[in-house]
Amino acid sequence: MCELLAMSANVPTDICFSFSGLMQRGGNTGPHKDGWGITFYEGKGCRSFKDPLPSAESAIARLVTEYPIKSEAVVCHIRQANSGAVCLENTHPFIRQMWGRNWTYAHNGQLKDFQKELPIKFHLPIGTTDSEHAFCWIMDQLHLQFGSHIPNDIELFSFVAHLSEKINKLGVFNLIITNGECLFAYCSNNLHWITRRAPFGKASLIDAEMEVDFHQETTANDVVTVIATKPLTDDETWQKMSAGQWQLFRLGEAIAKGAEGLAG
Amino acid sequence: MCELLAMSANVPTDICFSFSGLMQRGGNTGPHKDGWGITFYEGKGCRSFKDPLPSAESAIARLVTEYPIKSEAVVCHIRQANSGAVCLENTHPFIRQMWGRNWTYAHNGQLKDFQKELPIKFHLPIGTTDSEHAFCWIMDQLHLQFGSHIPNDIELFSFVAHLSEKINKLGVFNLIITNGECLFAYCSNNLHWITRRAPFGKASLIDAEMEVDFHQETTANDVVTVIATKPLTDDETWQKMSAGQWQLFRLGEAIAKGAEGLAG
Repeated sequence: MCELLAMSANVPTDICFSFSGLMQRGGNTGPHKDGWGITFYEGKGCRSFKDPLPSAESAIARLVTEYPIKSEAVVCHIRQANSGAVCLENTHPFIRQMWGRNWTYAHNGQLKDFQKELPIKFHLPIGTTDSEHAFCWIMDQLHLQFGSHIPNDIELFSFVAHLSEKINKLGVFNLIITNGECLFAYCSNNLHWITRRAPFGKASLIDAEMEVDFHQETTANDVVTVIATKPLTDDETWQKMSAGQWQLFRLGEAIAKGAEGLAG
Repeated sequence: MCELLAMSANVPTDICFSFSGLMQRGGNTGPHKDGWGITFYEGKGCRSFKDPLPSAESAIARLVTEYPIKSEAVVCHIRQANSGAVCLENTHPFIRQMWGRNWTYAHNGQLKDFQKELPIKFHLPIGTTDSEHAFCWIMDQLHLQFGSHIPNDIELFSFVAHLSEKINKLGVFNLIITNGECLFAYCSNNLHWITRRAPFGKASLIDAEMEVDFHQETTANDVVTVIATKPLTDDETWQKMSAGQWQLFRLGEAIAKGAEGLAG
Protein backbone atom coordinates (compact mmCIF):
# COMPACT_ATOMS: atom_id res chain seq x y z
CA MET A 1 0.00 0.00 0.00
CA CYS A 2 1.05 3.63 0.30
CA GLU A 3 0.77 6.54 2.68
CA LEU A 4 -0.87 9.89 2.08
CA LEU A 5 -0.17 13.29 3.60
CA ALA A 6 -1.93 16.57 2.84
CA MET A 7 -2.31 20.05 4.27
CA SER A 8 -4.79 22.90 3.98
CA ALA A 9 -3.98 26.22 5.64
CA ASN A 10 -5.34 29.78 5.82
CA VAL A 11 -1.82 31.27 5.57
CA PRO A 12 1.15 29.94 3.58
CA THR A 13 2.62 27.32 5.90
CA ASP A 14 5.51 24.91 5.53
CA ILE A 15 5.06 21.18 5.95
CA CYS A 16 8.69 20.39 6.87
CA PHE A 17 7.74 18.91 10.27
CA SER A 18 5.08 16.50 8.98
CA PHE A 19 7.12 15.58 5.90
CA SER A 20 10.15 14.82 8.10
CA GLY A 21 8.07 12.17 9.81
CA LEU A 22 6.45 10.75 6.69
CA MET A 23 9.67 10.44 4.67
CA GLN A 24 11.05 8.04 7.31
CA ARG A 25 8.25 5.64 6.41
CA GLY A 26 9.68 5.47 2.88
CA GLY A 27 12.28 2.78 3.54
CA ASN A 28 13.17 3.43 7.19
CA THR A 29 10.30 3.20 9.75
CA GLY A 30 7.92 2.02 7.00
CA PRO A 31 8.08 -0.10 3.82
CA HIS A 32 6.90 2.53 1.31
CA LYS A 33 10.15 2.63 -0.65
CA ASP A 34 8.86 2.69 -4.25
CA GLY A 35 9.07 6.40 -4.78
CA TRP A 36 7.46 9.50 -3.37
CA GLY A 37 6.15 12.87 -4.48
CA ILE A 38 4.90 16.13 -3.01
CA THR A 39 3.04 19.02 -4.62
CA PHE A 40 2.97 22.53 -3.13
CA TYR A 41 0.47 25.18 -4.21
CA GLU A 42 1.47 28.82 -4.14
CA GLY A 43 -1.60 30.70 -5.37
CA LYS A 44 -2.87 29.03 -8.53
CA GLY A 45 0.61 27.76 -9.37
CA CYS A 46 2.03 24.57 -8.01
CA ARG A 47 5.33 22.75 -8.03
CA SER A 48 6.07 19.12 -7.38
CA PHE A 49 9.10 17.21 -6.21
CA LYS A 50 9.13 13.56 -7.20
CA ASP A 51 11.55 10.69 -7.00
CA PRO A 52 11.19 7.01 -7.86
CA LEU A 53 13.86 6.43 -5.13
CA PRO A 54 12.92 5.72 -1.48
CA SER A 55 12.18 8.98 0.36
CA ALA A 56 14.36 8.00 3.30
CA GLU A 57 17.40 7.98 0.95
CA SER A 58 16.42 10.73 -1.48
CA ALA A 59 18.53 13.88 -1.89
CA ILE A 60 15.42 15.64 -3.16
CA ALA A 61 13.41 14.59 -0.09
CA ARG A 62 16.22 15.97 2.07
CA LEU A 63 15.97 19.30 0.23
CA VAL A 64 12.20 19.38 0.85
CA THR A 65 12.66 18.82 4.62
CA GLU A 66 15.30 21.56 4.82
CA TYR A 67 13.80 24.15 2.46
CA PRO A 68 10.60 25.58 3.98
CA ILE A 69 8.23 26.13 1.04
CA LYS A 70 5.22 28.09 2.32
CA SER A 71 2.00 26.79 0.83
CA GLU A 72 -1.78 26.90 1.38
CA ALA A 73 -2.31 23.39 0.02
CA VAL A 74 0.01 20.39 -0.11
CA VAL A 75 -0.46 16.79 -1.31
CA CYS A 76 2.18 14.14 -0.63
CA HIS A 77 2.43 10.41 -1.27
CA ILE A 78 4.96 7.69 -0.51
CA ARG A 79 4.50 4.55 -2.54
CA GLN A 80 4.64 0.83 -1.99
CA ALA A 81 3.90 -0.41 -5.49
CA ASN A 82 1.08 -2.87 -6.07
CA SER A 83 -0.17 -1.84 -9.54
CA GLY A 84 2.33 -0.55 -12.12
CA ALA A 85 6.14 -0.64 -12.19
CA VAL A 86 8.36 1.60 -10.05
CA CYS A 87 9.06 4.51 -12.39
CA LEU A 88 8.47 8.23 -12.63
CA GLU A 89 5.23 8.06 -14.64
CA ASN A 90 3.70 5.87 -11.92
CA THR A 91 4.78 8.16 -9.07
CA HIS A 92 2.04 10.18 -7.28
CA PRO A 93 0.79 12.87 -7.01
CA PHE A 94 -0.75 13.07 -10.47
CA ILE A 95 -1.67 16.45 -11.94
CA ARG A 96 -4.15 17.54 -14.59
CA GLN A 97 -5.58 20.93 -15.52
CA MET A 98 -9.26 21.86 -15.59
CA TRP A 99 -11.16 25.17 -15.43
CA GLY A 100 -7.90 27.15 -15.25
CA ARG A 101 -6.74 25.26 -12.18
CA ASN A 102 -4.12 22.62 -11.44
CA TRP A 103 -5.77 19.50 -9.98
CA THR A 104 -3.55 17.29 -7.83
CA TYR A 105 -4.46 13.75 -6.80
CA ALA A 106 -2.97 10.95 -4.70
CA HIS A 107 -4.47 7.56 -3.86
CA ASN A 108 -3.81 4.86 -1.30
CA GLY A 109 -5.32 1.45 -1.99
CA GLN A 110 -5.90 -0.93 -4.85
CA LEU A 111 -8.68 -1.23 -7.44
CA LYS A 112 -9.95 -4.26 -9.39
CA ASP A 113 -11.44 -4.24 -12.89
CA PHE A 114 -10.76 -0.51 -13.11
CA GLN A 115 -10.19 -0.50 -16.87
CA LYS A 116 -13.60 -2.08 -17.50
CA GLU A 117 -15.55 -0.31 -14.76
CA LEU A 118 -14.06 3.16 -15.23
CA PRO A 119 -14.06 3.82 -19.00
CA ILE A 120 -12.02 6.85 -20.07
CA LYS A 121 -12.45 9.06 -23.09
CA PHE A 122 -10.67 12.43 -22.81
CA HIS A 123 -8.11 12.35 -20.01
CA LEU A 124 -5.74 9.50 -20.88
CA PRO A 125 -3.33 8.03 -18.32
CA ILE A 126 0.43 8.33 -18.94
CA GLY A 127 1.53 5.54 -16.61
CA THR A 128 0.01 2.14 -15.83
CA THR A 129 -1.37 2.48 -12.28
CA ASP A 130 -4.96 1.91 -11.17
CA SER A 131 -4.55 5.22 -9.30
CA GLU A 132 -3.87 7.43 -12.31
CA HIS A 133 -6.61 5.63 -14.26
CA ALA A 134 -9.16 6.47 -11.53
CA PHE A 135 -7.96 10.10 -11.51
CA CYS A 136 -8.41 10.36 -15.29
CA TRP A 137 -11.91 8.90 -14.90
CA ILE A 138 -12.76 11.52 -12.26
CA MET A 139 -11.52 14.31 -14.60
CA ASP A 140 -13.58 12.85 -17.46
CA GLN A 141 -16.68 12.66 -15.26
CA LEU A 142 -16.24 16.26 -14.04
CA HIS A 143 -15.94 17.36 -17.66
CA LEU A 144 -19.05 15.37 -18.66
CA GLN A 145 -21.07 16.59 -15.65
CA PHE A 146 -20.20 20.30 -15.68
CA GLY A 147 -18.64 21.05 -19.12
CA SER A 148 -17.25 24.57 -19.17
CA HIS A 149 -19.53 25.70 -16.30
CA ILE A 150 -17.50 25.86 -13.08
CA PRO A 151 -19.71 24.67 -10.20
CA ASN A 152 -19.47 26.06 -6.65
CA ASP A 153 -17.24 24.24 -4.17
CA ILE A 154 -19.99 22.26 -2.43
CA GLU A 155 -21.67 21.16 -5.66
CA LEU A 156 -18.31 20.23 -7.16
CA PHE A 157 -16.94 18.21 -4.27
CA SER A 158 -20.28 16.54 -3.43
CA PHE A 159 -20.01 15.15 -6.95
CA VAL A 160 -16.40 14.10 -6.33
CA ALA A 161 -17.69 12.29 -3.21
CA HIS A 162 -20.28 10.54 -5.35
CA LEU A 163 -17.56 9.46 -7.81
CA SER A 164 -15.35 8.30 -4.91
CA GLU A 165 -18.11 6.02 -3.65
CA LYS A 166 -18.35 4.43 -7.09
CA ILE A 167 -14.59 3.89 -7.31
CA ASN A 168 -14.48 2.57 -3.74
CA LYS A 169 -16.73 -0.32 -4.77
CA LEU A 170 -13.78 -1.61 -6.84
CA GLY A 171 -11.47 -2.10 -3.86
CA VAL A 172 -9.69 0.27 -1.48
CA PHE A 173 -9.82 3.95 -2.33
CA ASN A 174 -8.38 6.42 0.16
CA LEU A 175 -8.24 9.66 -1.80
CA ILE A 176 -6.76 13.14 -1.54
CA ILE A 177 -7.64 15.60 -4.30
CA THR A 178 -7.29 19.38 -4.51
CA ASN A 179 -7.66 22.24 -6.96
CA GLY A 180 -5.39 24.38 -4.78
CA GLU A 181 -8.33 26.05 -2.99
CA CYS A 182 -10.31 23.13 -1.63
CA LEU A 183 -8.79 19.93 -0.29
CA PHE A 184 -11.00 16.83 -0.41
CA ALA A 185 -10.39 13.56 1.43
CA TYR A 186 -12.32 10.31 0.99
CA CYS A 187 -11.74 7.48 3.45
CA SER A 188 -12.03 3.91 2.28
CA ASN A 189 -10.42 2.32 5.32
CA ASN A 190 -7.56 4.45 6.66
CA LEU A 191 -7.31 8.23 6.94
CA HIS A 192 -6.82 10.63 9.86
CA TRP A 193 -6.82 14.40 10.22
CA ILE A 194 -6.12 17.12 12.73
CA THR A 195 -6.81 20.86 12.71
CA ARG A 196 -4.29 22.94 14.62
CA ARG A 197 -5.27 26.46 15.81
CA ALA A 198 -4.59 28.77 18.75
CA PRO A 199 -3.73 28.05 21.47
CA PHE A 200 -0.92 26.14 19.73
CA GLY A 201 1.13 23.62 21.67
CA LYS A 202 3.99 21.23 21.18
CA ALA A 203 3.97 18.04 19.15
CA SER A 204 6.39 15.13 18.75
CA LEU A 205 6.85 12.99 15.65
CA ILE A 206 6.32 9.24 15.90
CA ASP A 207 8.83 8.40 13.13
CA ALA A 208 11.75 10.68 14.00
CA GLU A 209 13.16 12.27 17.11
CA MET A 210 11.74 15.67 16.43
CA GLU A 211 9.54 17.99 18.45
CA VAL A 212 8.05 21.29 17.35
CA ASP A 213 6.47 24.09 19.35
CA PHE A 214 3.81 25.37 16.94
CA HIS A 215 3.34 28.40 19.23
CA GLN A 216 6.78 29.62 18.10
CA GLU A 217 6.04 29.04 14.41
CA THR A 218 2.56 30.51 14.05
CA THR A 219 0.38 33.55 14.69
CA ALA A 220 -2.88 33.48 16.69
CA ASN A 221 -5.02 33.47 13.51
CA ASP A 222 -3.39 30.51 11.77
CA VAL A 223 -5.56 27.49 11.03
CA VAL A 224 -3.78 24.44 9.61
CA THR A 225 -5.29 21.04 8.87
CA VAL A 226 -3.09 18.02 8.24
CA ILE A 227 -4.44 14.76 6.81
CA ALA A 228 -2.44 11.53 6.95
CA THR A 229 -2.96 7.81 6.50
CA LYS A 230 -1.74 7.24 10.06
CA PRO A 231 -1.21 9.92 12.74
CA LEU A 232 2.26 11.49 12.50
CA THR A 233 2.47 12.67 16.13
CA ASP A 234 1.89 10.74 19.36
CA ASP A 235 0.91 13.60 21.68
CA GLU A 236 -2.03 15.12 19.79
CA THR A 237 -5.58 13.89 19.13
CA TRP A 238 -6.14 12.96 15.48
CA GLN A 239 -9.64 12.44 14.04
CA LYS A 240 -10.03 8.97 12.58
CA MET A 241 -12.25 8.96 9.48
CA SER A 242 -14.69 6.10 9.09
CA ALA A 243 -15.21 3.95 5.99
CA GLY A 244 -17.14 5.84 3.32
CA GLN A 245 -16.69 9.22 5.01
CA TRP A 246 -15.50 12.31 3.18
CA GLN A 247 -14.27 15.71 4.35
CA LEU A 248 -13.82 18.96 2.48
CA PHE A 249 -11.35 21.56 3.73
CA ARG A 250 -10.74 25.14 2.63
CA LEU A 251 -8.17 27.51 4.12
CA GLY A 252 -7.53 25.00 6.90
CA GLU A 253 -11.19 24.74 8.00
CA ALA A 254 -13.49 21.73 7.54
CA ILE A 255 -16.33 23.20 5.44
CA ALA A 256 -18.36 20.12 4.48
CA LYS A 257 -18.53 16.40 5.12
CA GLY A 258 -20.63 13.38 4.31
CA ALA A 259 -20.78 9.64 4.53
CA GLU A 260 -21.63 6.65 2.33
CA GLY A 261 -25.18 6.90 1.01
CA LEU A 262 -25.57 10.56 1.96
CA ALA A 263 -23.27 12.10 -0.62
CA GLY A 264 -23.97 12.92 -4.23
CA MET B 1 13.20 38.50 -22.38
CA CYS B 2 14.14 35.02 -21.26
CA GLU B 3 16.57 32.23 -22.09
CA LEU B 4 15.79 28.72 -23.23
CA LEU B 5 17.77 25.50 -22.83
CA ALA B 6 16.78 22.04 -24.02
CA MET B 7 18.34 18.63 -24.60
CA SER B 8 17.54 15.54 -26.66
CA ALA B 9 19.68 12.42 -26.22
CA ASN B 10 19.74 8.77 -27.30
CA VAL B 11 20.79 7.63 -23.81
CA PRO B 12 19.75 9.09 -20.45
CA THR B 13 22.16 12.00 -20.01
CA ASP B 14 22.51 14.64 -17.33
CA ILE B 15 22.41 18.33 -18.14
CA CYS B 16 24.38 19.52 -15.08
CA PHE B 17 27.14 21.14 -17.20
CA SER B 18 24.83 23.18 -19.44
CA PHE B 19 22.49 24.07 -16.56
CA SER B 20 25.47 25.26 -14.48
CA GLY B 21 26.17 27.82 -17.21
CA LEU B 22 22.58 28.86 -17.79
CA MET B 23 21.67 29.36 -14.12
CA GLN B 24 24.39 32.04 -13.85
CA ARG B 25 22.41 34.09 -16.36
CA GLY B 26 19.54 34.16 -13.84
CA GLY B 27 20.75 37.14 -11.82
CA ASN B 28 24.53 36.84 -12.14
CA THR B 29 25.99 36.93 -15.70
CA GLY B 30 22.50 37.68 -17.11
CA PRO B 31 19.38 39.62 -16.05
CA HIS B 32 16.89 36.72 -16.15
CA LYS B 33 16.10 36.81 -12.44
CA ASP B 34 12.30 36.40 -12.45
CA GLY B 35 12.20 32.68 -11.83
CA TRP B 36 13.31 29.54 -13.60
CA GLY B 37 12.16 26.00 -14.23
CA ILE B 38 13.44 22.74 -15.68
CA THR B 39 11.61 19.57 -16.71
CA PHE B 40 13.32 16.18 -17.02
CA TYR B 41 11.75 13.23 -18.85
CA GLU B 42 12.49 9.72 -17.69
CA GLY B 43 10.53 7.48 -20.04
CA LYS B 44 6.99 8.82 -20.33
CA GLY B 45 7.18 10.34 -16.87
CA CYS B 46 8.62 13.75 -16.17
CA ARG B 47 9.48 15.86 -13.19
CA SER B 48 9.97 19.58 -12.93
CA PHE B 49 11.88 21.83 -10.60
CA LYS B 50 10.62 25.41 -10.49
CA ASP B 51 11.33 28.49 -8.47
CA PRO B 52 10.05 32.06 -8.78
CA LEU B 53 13.42 33.08 -7.21
CA PRO B 54 16.51 33.95 -9.35
CA SER B 55 18.30 30.76 -10.43
CA ALA B 56 21.70 32.15 -9.41
CA GLU B 57 20.46 32.31 -5.77
CA SER B 58 18.10 29.30 -5.71
CA ALA B 59 18.71 26.36 -3.35
CA ILE B 60 16.65 24.22 -5.74
CA ALA B 61 18.81 25.28 -8.72
CA ARG B 62 21.89 24.32 -6.71
CA LEU B 63 20.40 20.86 -6.12
CA VAL B 64 19.76 20.47 -9.86
CA THR B 65 23.39 21.32 -10.69
CA GLU B 66 24.71 18.87 -8.10
CA TYR B 67 22.26 15.99 -8.58
CA PRO B 68 22.78 14.35 -11.99
CA ILE B 69 19.30 13.39 -13.20
CA LYS B 70 19.70 11.25 -16.34
CA SER B 71 17.14 12.12 -18.97
CA GLU B 72 16.45 11.70 -22.70
CA ALA B 73 14.65 15.04 -22.99
CA VAL B 74 14.99 18.24 -20.95
CA VAL B 75 13.38 21.67 -21.25
CA CYS B 76 14.63 24.61 -19.16
CA HIS B 77 13.73 28.29 -18.98
CA ILE B 78 15.02 31.29 -17.03
CA ARG B 79 12.66 34.21 -17.00
CA GLN B 80 12.89 37.96 -17.31
CA ALA B 81 9.24 38.90 -16.94
CA ASN B 82 7.56 41.04 -19.58
CA SER B 83 3.99 39.67 -19.53
CA GLY B 84 2.48 38.46 -16.26
CA ALA B 85 3.62 38.90 -12.65
CA VAL B 86 6.56 37.04 -11.11
CA CYS B 87 4.86 34.05 -9.48
CA LEU B 88 4.79 30.28 -9.70
CA GLU B 89 1.85 29.98 -12.11
CA ASN B 90 3.70 32.22 -14.59
CA THR B 91 6.95 30.22 -14.36
CA HIS B 92 7.94 28.08 -17.37
CA PRO B 93 8.07 25.31 -18.47
CA PHE B 94 4.31 24.74 -18.76
CA ILE B 95 2.96 21.19 -18.92
CA ARG B 96 -0.24 19.69 -20.31
CA GLN B 97 -1.27 16.11 -21.15
CA MET B 98 -2.42 14.83 -24.53
CA TRP B 99 -2.55 11.39 -26.15
CA GLY B 100 -1.16 9.75 -22.99
CA ARG B 101 1.93 11.95 -23.02
CA ASN B 102 3.22 14.86 -20.99
CA TRP B 103 3.76 17.90 -23.22
CA THR B 104 6.29 20.46 -21.98
CA TYR B 105 6.62 23.95 -23.42
CA ALA B 106 8.84 27.01 -22.90
CA HIS B 107 8.81 30.30 -24.81
CA ASN B 108 11.18 33.20 -25.22
CA GLY B 109 9.74 36.40 -26.67
CA GLN B 110 6.63 38.52 -26.44
CA LEU B 111 3.26 38.37 -28.22
CA LYS B 112 0.74 41.14 -28.98
CA ASP B 113 -3.04 40.75 -29.22
CA PHE B 114 -2.68 37.08 -28.28
CA GLN B 115 -6.03 36.89 -26.48
CA LYS B 116 -7.87 38.10 -29.58
CA GLU B 117 -5.76 36.32 -32.21
CA LEU B 118 -5.39 32.99 -30.41
CA PRO B 119 -8.88 32.09 -29.13
CA ILE B 120 -8.93 29.20 -26.65
CA LYS B 121 -11.73 26.76 -25.90
CA PHE B 122 -10.57 23.60 -24.12
CA HIS B 123 -7.11 24.11 -22.62
CA LEU B 124 -7.44 27.09 -20.27
CA PRO B 125 -4.40 28.96 -18.94
CA ILE B 126 -3.74 28.98 -15.19
CA GLY B 127 -1.44 32.02 -15.11
CA THR B 128 -1.53 35.30 -17.04
CA THR B 129 1.41 35.07 -19.49
CA ASP B 130 1.25 35.36 -23.28
CA SER B 131 3.45 32.24 -23.28
CA GLU B 132 1.04 29.89 -21.49
CA HIS B 133 -1.85 31.30 -23.54
CA ALA B 134 -0.02 30.41 -26.78
CA PHE B 135 0.72 26.93 -25.42
CA CYS B 136 -2.95 26.38 -24.58
CA TRP B 137 -3.85 27.52 -28.11
CA ILE B 138 -1.39 25.01 -29.60
CA MET B 139 -2.92 22.21 -27.48
CA ASP B 140 -6.43 23.27 -28.58
CA GLN B 141 -5.37 23.31 -32.25
CA LEU B 142 -3.74 19.85 -31.99
CA HIS B 143 -6.96 18.55 -30.45
CA LEU B 144 -9.09 20.15 -33.18
CA GLN B 145 -6.78 18.96 -35.98
CA PHE B 146 -6.19 15.36 -34.92
CA GLY B 147 -8.85 14.55 -32.28
CA SER B 148 -8.13 11.17 -30.72
CA HIS B 149 -6.06 10.04 -33.75
CA ILE B 150 -2.35 10.26 -32.87
CA PRO B 151 -0.44 11.43 -35.97
CA ASN B 152 3.10 10.30 -36.79
CA ASP B 153 5.99 12.49 -35.62
CA ILE B 154 6.56 14.32 -38.91
CA GLU B 155 2.87 15.03 -39.52
CA LEU B 156 2.44 16.16 -35.92
CA PHE B 157 5.41 18.50 -35.72
CA SER B 158 4.97 19.90 -39.23
CA PHE B 159 1.60 21.05 -37.93
CA VAL B 160 3.26 22.49 -34.79
CA ALA B 161 5.61 24.38 -37.17
CA HIS B 162 2.59 25.72 -39.03
CA LEU B 163 1.05 26.89 -35.73
CA SER B 164 4.40 28.45 -34.67
CA GLU B 165 4.47 30.54 -37.84
CA LYS B 166 1.01 31.86 -37.06
CA ILE B 167 1.94 32.74 -33.48
CA ASN B 168 5.24 34.30 -34.62
CA LYS B 169 3.27 36.89 -36.60
CA LEU B 170 2.14 38.32 -33.23
CA GLY B 171 5.66 39.22 -32.08
CA VAL B 172 8.69 37.20 -31.03
CA PHE B 173 8.18 33.46 -30.61
CA ASN B 174 11.24 31.32 -29.91
CA LEU B 175 9.74 27.98 -28.91
CA ILE B 176 10.79 24.69 -27.36
CA ILE B 177 8.13 21.97 -27.10
CA THR B 178 8.41 18.24 -26.46
CA ASN B 179 6.24 15.20 -25.80
CA GLY B 180 9.23 13.43 -24.25
CA GLU B 181 10.14 11.61 -27.49
CA CYS B 182 10.50 14.42 -30.01
CA LEU B 183 11.95 17.83 -29.22
CA PHE B 184 10.83 20.68 -31.47
CA ALA B 185 12.47 24.12 -31.73
CA TYR B 186 11.12 27.13 -33.63
CA CYS B 187 13.36 30.17 -34.08
CA SER B 188 11.80 33.59 -34.22
CA ASN B 189 15.05 35.54 -33.80
CA ASN B 190 17.43 33.80 -31.40
CA LEU B 191 18.13 30.09 -30.98
CA HIS B 192 21.27 27.94 -31.32
CA TRP B 193 21.95 24.21 -31.19
CA ILE B 194 24.81 21.75 -31.17
CA THR B 195 24.93 17.96 -31.57
CA ARG B 196 27.73 16.25 -29.68
CA ARG B 197 28.85 12.76 -30.76
CA ALA B 198 32.08 10.72 -30.94
CA PRO B 199 34.87 11.71 -31.08
CA PHE B 200 33.94 13.74 -27.99
CA GLY B 201 36.17 16.57 -26.86
CA LYS B 202 36.41 19.20 -24.16
CA ALA B 203 34.18 22.22 -23.73
CA SER B 204 34.33 25.32 -21.52
CA LEU B 205 31.35 27.28 -20.21
CA ILE B 206 31.07 30.98 -21.04
CA ASP B 207 29.18 31.87 -17.83
CA ALA B 208 31.15 29.95 -15.21
CA GLU B 209 34.69 28.71 -14.77
CA MET B 210 33.92 25.14 -15.67
CA GLU B 211 35.33 22.76 -18.26
CA VAL B 212 34.11 19.27 -19.08
CA ASP B 213 35.76 16.47 -21.05
CA PHE B 214 32.77 14.77 -22.69
CA HIS B 215 35.05 11.88 -23.68
CA GLN B 216 35.22 10.92 -19.98
CA GLU B 217 31.45 11.19 -19.49
CA THR B 218 30.14 9.38 -22.56
CA THR B 219 30.31 6.19 -24.61
CA ALA B 220 31.12 6.09 -28.34
CA ASN B 221 27.46 5.67 -29.31
CA ASP B 222 26.05 8.65 -27.39
CA VAL B 223 24.37 11.40 -29.38
CA VAL B 224 23.31 14.49 -27.46
CA THR B 225 21.81 17.67 -28.86
CA VAL B 226 21.64 20.84 -26.78
CA ILE B 227 19.55 23.85 -27.82
CA ALA B 228 20.03 27.26 -26.19
CA THR B 229 19.08 30.87 -26.78
CA LYS B 230 22.77 31.79 -26.84
CA PRO B 231 25.73 29.37 -27.04
CA LEU B 232 26.77 28.12 -23.59
CA THR B 233 30.36 27.22 -24.51
CA ASP B 234 33.04 29.31 -26.25
CA ASP B 235 35.18 26.51 -27.75
CA GLU B 236 32.59 24.59 -29.79
CA THR B 237 30.71 25.45 -32.99
CA TRP B 238 27.00 26.07 -32.38
CA GLN B 239 24.47 26.15 -35.24
CA LYS B 240 22.65 29.47 -35.36
CA MET B 241 19.02 29.07 -36.44
CA SER B 242 17.59 31.65 -38.81
CA ALA B 243 14.32 33.51 -38.42
CA GLY B 244 11.35 31.28 -39.26
CA GLN B 245 13.41 28.08 -39.15
CA TRP B 246 12.34 24.99 -37.20
CA GLN B 247 14.16 21.82 -36.21
CA LEU B 248 12.85 18.50 -34.94
CA PHE B 249 15.08 16.23 -32.84
CA ARG B 250 14.57 12.67 -31.67
CA LEU B 251 17.02 10.64 -29.57
CA GLY B 252 19.62 13.38 -30.07
CA GLU B 253 19.43 13.39 -33.88
CA ALA B 254 17.99 16.13 -36.11
CA ILE B 255 15.22 14.26 -37.99
CA ALA B 256 13.38 17.06 -39.79
CA LYS B 257 13.58 20.77 -40.41
CA GLY B 258 11.86 23.52 -42.32
CA ALA B 259 11.67 27.24 -42.79
CA GLU B 260 9.08 29.99 -43.08
CA GLY B 261 6.72 29.36 -45.95
CA LEU B 262 7.82 25.74 -46.39
CA ALA B 263 6.32 24.28 -43.23
CA GLY B 264 2.80 23.03 -42.65
